[in-house]
Amino acid sequence: MIRIALDAMGGDGAPAPEVDGAVLALRELPSDFELILVGREPDIEARLLRHRDVDRSRLRIVPAPDVIGMAERPLAAVRKKPNSSLVVGLNLHRTGEVDAFISAGNTGATLAGATILLGLHDGVDRAAVASPFPAVKGTVLVVDAGANVDCTSKELVNFARLGTVYMRDLMGVAEPKVGLLNIGEEDEKGGTVIRETHMLLKRQPRIRYVGNIEGRDIVVPHPSHGQVDVVVCDGFVGNVVLKFYESMGGLVTELIRRESPALLESRELQPLRHFLDPSTYGGGPLLGVRGVAIICHGASTSIAIQNAIQRAVDSVRNGLSAHTAAEMALYEAPATV
Amino acid sequence: MIRIALDAMGGDGAPAPEVDGAVLALRELPSDFELILVGREPDIEARLLRHRDVDRSRLRIVPAPDVIGMAERPLAAVRKKPNSSLVVGLNLHRTGEVDAFISAGNTGATLAGATILLGLHDGVDRAAVASPFPAVKGTVLVVDAGANVDCTSKELVNFARLGTVYMRDLMGVAEPKVGLLNIGEEDEKGGTVIRETHMLLKRQPRIRYVGNIEGRDIVVPHPSHGQVDVVVCDGFVGNVVLKFYESMGGLVTELIRRESPALLESRELQPLRHFLDPSTYGGGPLLGVRGVAIICHGASTSIAIQNAIQRAVDSVRNGLSAHTAAEMALYEAPATV
Repeated sequence: MIRIALDAMGGDGAPAPEVDGAVLALRELPSDFELILVGREPDIEARLLRHRDVDRSRLRIVPAPDVIGMAERPLAAVRKKPNSSLVVGLNLHRTGEVDAFISAGNTGATLAGATILLGLHDGVDRAAVASPFPAVKGTVLVVDAGANVDCTSKELVNFARLGTVYMRDLMGVAEPKVGLLNIGEEDEKGGTVIRETHMLLKRQPRIRYVGNIEGRDIVVPHPSHGQVDVVVCDGFVGNVVLKFYESMGGLVTELIRRESPALLESRELQPLRHFLDPSTYGGGPLLGVRGVAIICHGASTSIAIQNAIQRAVDSVRNGLSAHTAAEMALYEAPATV
Repeated sequence: MIRIALDAMGGDGAPAPEVDGAVLALRELPSDFELILVGREPDIEARLLRHRDVDRSRLRIVPAPDVIGMAERPLAAVRKKPNSSLVVGLNLHRTGEVDAFISAGNTGATLAGATILLGLHDGVDRAAVASPFPAVKGTVLVVDAGANVDCTSKELVNFARLGTVYMRDLMGVAEPKVGLLNIGEEDEKGGTVIRETHMLLKRQPRIRYVGNIEGRDIVVPHPSHGQVDVVVCDGFVGNVVLKFYESMGGLVTELIRRESPALLESRELQPLRHFLDPSTYGGGPLLGVRGVAIICHGASTSIAIQNAIQRAVDSVRNGLSAHTAAEMALYEAPATV
């Protein structure tokens, strides 16, 4: 039985989407997992009253009276609030009482907490927040999507390795194609770190590196490489593109409202609007930590929480953490060209 | 009479879109300008045969036998090809024979050539390529969109000043709102350069700085600031976001083709598809150079060329270069906090 701890107090609407998402998951997903909701017991129980039919044999509550807010400074919050749902949940994972941890809360605090409490695999200097982007063909994993503002070439190479393992374990892509996000395809494009990363990735074993790619090649297939599976970039660029992409649903809706309002309620437009709605995505994995940790969008819906639970179960079942450790143990990525 | 030189050999389909766009502009725009097509005379004349009705009294050809290719190294190409359409056209501007220059060719070469041949206004260390993004409400200017991969805080502050002058002169925005592209709104977000730029912009005179903005606030109005007019970022981030945005039209078309093919030919969807089609945009201005230079997309259509001509005429008529010089002469942007 796979055990998943879910921070019930994380997201903007907590604990409603978390509790509802947990109930959805228990009802609709295969029953090989159990859920531990971490947070304020009265609030969680109050929400659970709406779901009297839920199977409580696979649902437990671990009380945690404190909450880390979205605006709190990550490291300070983790240190000062040992009784927060985030720290209590991560400690359950650290001590082996659960196999994975999910939070829709403060991304920086989840990253800092996971790094400190779970630790990093040997060879990993910094954990990455990866973000699965819906693409024209399947899903592309962008690593990093906000954790690491400035990156060395060694760290970027490690993102390629971490992303490759993830796409193999979670998406069943045997040999994931990796692209380095740049402003042109030629070797000399980009700044010093990017050019060095490009040269390192070219001679990296077990990475199927297709080369530099551009912004237009992230979610639309490249004319010759096709759709890439992993996009490597620093967390500044990744975060900007992620949030820009998240704004496209609103842009499309607003343009249609203005130009063709009759279309807005059309059933035929729903697949596009659904595709561009980030609140339904299941969150992004924290890569490089010992264990399984998933960070969801603060505005996650119950569907997003359900999807994150599914992804956590898959990560545990498919051995993501062990495979990551094995990949990183094979060698240290070279520090320079 | 405003005189505009157009590199007829620049774009991917040259000289067809350039010649056709010039003819469109002569036919449809107010007649206060004349055009100088620069390039291989036989090729240009051959294309002009399709437009026997064109008013040749406002259209001249200045021959230039060489062409700088898209893949050539910018500085080397400018130095080695004095008889290229790009260098000949820029020299016409340098010597005062024309008031503006437009090219859909090699961006780096246009930037390098304009910097060397036209020179930069006092106080400008590096020219910027600005890109007007179509937004839900109007147009937002992203500065820089690809010219400068690494930027100092002083350069980023100057981008804010250059962008402000442009939006005032070209878009009629009296007090353009400027946002600094970052991964969060708080003062401490981003790396050293971005944090320093944020502090400098806060106390910058004559800049209406609204603060840090995120990727989601570029083309969709910010909940409290509304739509920003100028987005400041380094050329790496700006270029990635620009090209990502350019790929959205293809993404939307492909999703609709797959999910709701009946919609694809629907007239009601055309405004959205037109909005997301970058081949119709009129190119981006080179900011900071002495004069007026506009860089168009390599895949520009004749409509895009016509729009670029309109923008060049407006830039000259509204005194963009003089206003930029005046702004930059007022003071040197402080180098550090």
